[in-house]
Amino acid sequence: MALTQAFLYRDEQLYCEDVSLQELAEQFGTPSYVYSKNAICRNFHDFKTIFKSLDPLICYAVKANSNLSVLSLLKKEGSGFDIVSAGELYRLQEIGANPQRIIFSGVGKSLQELEMALDSSLFCINVESLEELEVLDNVARDKGLRPNIALRLNPDVDTKTHPHVSTGLRQHKFGFDINHMERILQLLKPPSHLNLVGLGCHIGSQILDIQPYLDAFLRLKAMANKLESYGFEIQHLDLGGGIGIPYTPQEKEANLVQYADLLAQHKDSHRFLFEPGRYIVGNAGVLLNKVLYYKTNHEKHFFVVDGAMNDLIRPALYQAHHEILPLARQEETIKADVVGPICETGDFFARDRRLPLFKRGDYLAIMNTGAYGFVAASNYNSRLRPSEILVDGDRSQVIRQRES
Amino acid sequence: MALTQAFLYRDEQLYCEDVSLQELAEQFGTPSYVYSKNAICRNFHDFKTIFKSLDPLICYAVKANSNLSVLSLLKKEGSGFDIVSAGELYRLQEIGANPQRIIFSGVGKSLQELEMALDSSLFCINVESLEELEVLDNVARDKGLRPNIALRLNPDVDTKTHPHVSTGLRQHKFGFDINHMERILQLLKPPSHLNLVGLGCHIGSQILDIQPYLDAFLRLKAMANKLESYGFEIQHLDLGGGIGIPYTPQEKEANLVQYADLLAQHKDSHRFLFEPGRYIVGNAGVLLNKVLYYKTNHEKHFFVVDGAMNDLIRPALYQAHHEILPLARQEETIKADVVGPICETGDFFARDRRLPLFKRGDYLAIMNTGAYGFVAASNYNSRLRPSEILVDGDRSQVIRQRES
Repeated sequence: MALTQAFLYRDEQLYCEDVSLQELAEQFGTPSYVYSKNAICRNFHDFKTIFKSLDPLICYAVKANSNLSVLSLLKKEGSGFDIVSAGELYRLQEIGANPQRIIFSGVGKSLQELEMALDSSLFCINVESLEELEVLDNVARDKGLRPNIALRLNPDVDTKTHPHVSTGLRQHKFGFDINHMERILQLLKPPSHLNLVGLGCHIGSQILDIQPYLDAFLRLKAMANKLESYGFEIQHLDLGGGIGIPYTPQEKEANLVQYADLLAQHKDSHRFLFEPGRYIVGNAGVLLNKVLYYKTNHEKHFFVVDGAMNDLIRPALYQAHHEILPLARQEETIKADVVGPICETGDFFARDRRLPLFKRGDYLAIMNTGAYGFVAASNYNSRLRPSEILVDGDRSQVIRQRES
Repeated sequence: MALTQAFLYRDEQLYCEDVSLQELAEQFGTPSYVYSKNAICRNFHDFKTIFKSLDPLICYAVKANSNLSVLSLLKKEGSGFDIVSAGELYRLQEIGANPQRIIFSGVGKSLQELEMALDSSLFCINVESLEELEVLDNVARDKGLRPNIALRLNPDVDTKTHPHVSTGLRQHKFGFDINHMERILQLLKPPSHLNLVGLGCHIGSQILDIQPYLDAFLRLKAMANKLESYGFEIQHLDLGGGIGIPYTPQEKEANLVQYADLLAQHKDSHRFLFEPGRYIVGNAGVLLNKVLYYKTNHEKHFFVVDGAMNDLIRPALYQAHHEILPLARQEETIKADVVGPICETGDFFARDRRLPLFKRGDYLAIMNTGAYGFVAASNYNSRLRPSEILVDGDRSQVIRQRES
C-alpha cells in the first residue's frame, strides 16, 4: 500500500511525521482527523514547482478542507484561494488573506454573497449563468464598481469519474452554454459594469487522466481568441481543479509533469489559474478510529469502530475507497467490513476487505481523508463532530476541538 | 400529488396549517425547515389508535428528527423514545423525558455511552453483539446494577428497500446472528449482571410492505419461546421501526391496520414495542427554498435554489424522491432540474421533472422532509445550517435559529 512520506511505520507503529498516532489517539480520543503540516506544504510546493514555468496563480479550493489553521498554512506558503460561499470568504477574512488572491466560484451565489464579494474587492468572480450576470451587473452598478469577472464555460468534456463529481458535461448544472455566447457578449458590452478578464471551466473531481484537461483548455483558448476578436481582453484562463489522488493501490498519480508540458506547448499570452484542493490536502490527513466491537453475522465479519458516516461521508456518498491501516502493525488478517455506529447499512468504511485481525480497543487510520472529510461532517444521530489535529515534526496541536 | 392535510393550497398559496408559507419564507428567509405541530401529533395519534388493541410501548426514533421542540411535543403526547447515541440521550434529558420510557439501540455504543445509559436507568438497552454483551456485563457489575436488556436479532428478512437502509439481511452489521444463541445464553446465565427482558429486530427503513414485518415478528416470537424454555422471562418483542411514507404519487401508505390485525392474531403474552420515526414526522415537514437563478445548458433547464445537499442530503445519498411544490401556484410548467449551489453534480433535489416555470425569487417547498432532513445537515462548502420553524394553527415559532 502506498504511504505518503508523512505517514510511515516505525517499529511497527504508524507515525505522522515524528508523532506516534497511537499516542495521539490515546491523548486526544477518537474519532479524530490528523493532518501533516509538512505534507500539505510539500504538496503545495510540488504543485507550484511542476507548473513553475507557466507562472500560474494557484488558488487552493477552500471547500476541500477549510480548517483555519490549514488555510493559514497555505496563505503563508503563498497560495491564493478559490471560494464557493460567503462562509468560506468569512474564513479567509478571519486569517487575513489578500482579497486580490481570492476568486469566487459557484453556480448559486445569493444576492448577499455577490454584495459581500464586491465589498471585499475580490480578484475575480466566476459567473456561471446569464441571470447571475444580470444580477451581478445590477449590484456593481448600485455600488458604482466595475468588478473583474470570468465566465465559467461548460466545455462538455467527459472525465469518466463518479457521476456525482463529474461536472463538465452538457447535462450538468455548471457553467455557461457556449451557444449563449451572443447574449453574453451583449450583456458585457458598454454600459456593462462588469470587467471580463477571464474564462474558466471545472470538469470534475478526482480526475487522474490529464487528457480531458487538455481538451477543456483548448476549448477555453479558442473561446478566448474569439472573444478577443470582439474586443475583450482576456487575461487569464482558469483550468479549475479536480486533479485526483490515488486512493487505491491500483490507482496512479495524475501525470502533472506531462500536463504542464502540454500546457506549455499551447501557451500564449493568457495567464493560467489553477484551483487544486484534494491534491494539496487529500493525502495529508487521516481519520483515527478505535475498534469498539468485533462481531460476526453468519459468514460475515465486522469491526464496529467509533467513527461513522457523519464524520466521513465519502464511502456512503460516493462509494469511495479509503485504505485502512492499523496504528500498531500485526500479522494476522481477516476479510471483514469496517462499520460505524450509525443505524444505516450505508454507514461503512470498508467492505469485504482483507484487514488486520483487530481487537477491541485497537486503533486504525482511515487514510487519505484530508480532503472532503471534516468539511462534510454532520451531527447525524446527534453525534459530535470529531476533533482535528495538526502535526508538525514532533509537535501536535488541536486545531479544532471535538464538539461537546 | 398527495398533500397531507397540514400542507394545502388556499387561494393558490401553499399553507402550513393556517400560515402562508410564502410569508414565512419572506419573514425568516430560506432555506428553512417548517414543521406542522398538528401533523406530528396526528401521526402519533393515528399510530397509537391503529395499534391500540395491542397496547404497545411506542418509542419515537429520535434520529429521525431530534429538534428539542419536536421531542417535547411527542413527550407531551405520551411517546417513549428510541435513542442511538449519548447525544440523543442528552437531548431527552434536556426535555425531562422519563428514562423508563427510553430504549437505547445501536450497533456501536461506546463504553462512555453504556455507562451513561446505566447511570440514567433507561428502560432497556438493545444489545447487538457478543462483545457488547460482555462489556455491558462488566459495566453493570462495576456499578452494582442489573439493567434490563433486549437482544437485537438479525432476522435475515429481505425488505426490498434501498440497499443503504435495508438492515435485516444476514450480510448486514446489525443484530445478533441467531446461530450464536448458545453462547449468548451462556453469558446471560447467573452470575450475569444483565436482565434479559426482550428481543428485538429492525429490518430496515422506508418499508411500505408489511409482510417482512410479520416474518420478522414470527421469528422473534419463536426465539422468545425457545428462550423461555431455557428459563428466561421475555416480556417484550421490539419490532423496530422503518415504516415508510409515500414520497412519490405512485407509492401507497403502508397498511398498518392490516399489520395490527396480523399481529393481534399471533399475539401472546409478550408486549409489543415499536420504534416509528419517519412515520411520525416525515410528512409533517417541508424545506423552503428560494429560486436564485434559472439557467439552461444545451437542452437542459435548471432552477438553482438556495438550499443544497448540506441542508437535505437524501436525494444525493439515497437518490430519494421528494415532491416539489410552488408556494404560489402557477399554470406554466417546464421539464427541469432543481439544483443547489454546491459544486457537485450530486447536489440536486429533482432531475428532469415537470415543474412550474419558476422565476428568480420564487419560492418552492421540498415536501416530506420532516424526517432525516435537518438531522443530517452539515456545513459542507462552509454553508450555514438552515433554521427550523414550528407552525401551530395560525402561529409560527423559530425552534432553531439559522446558524450565523
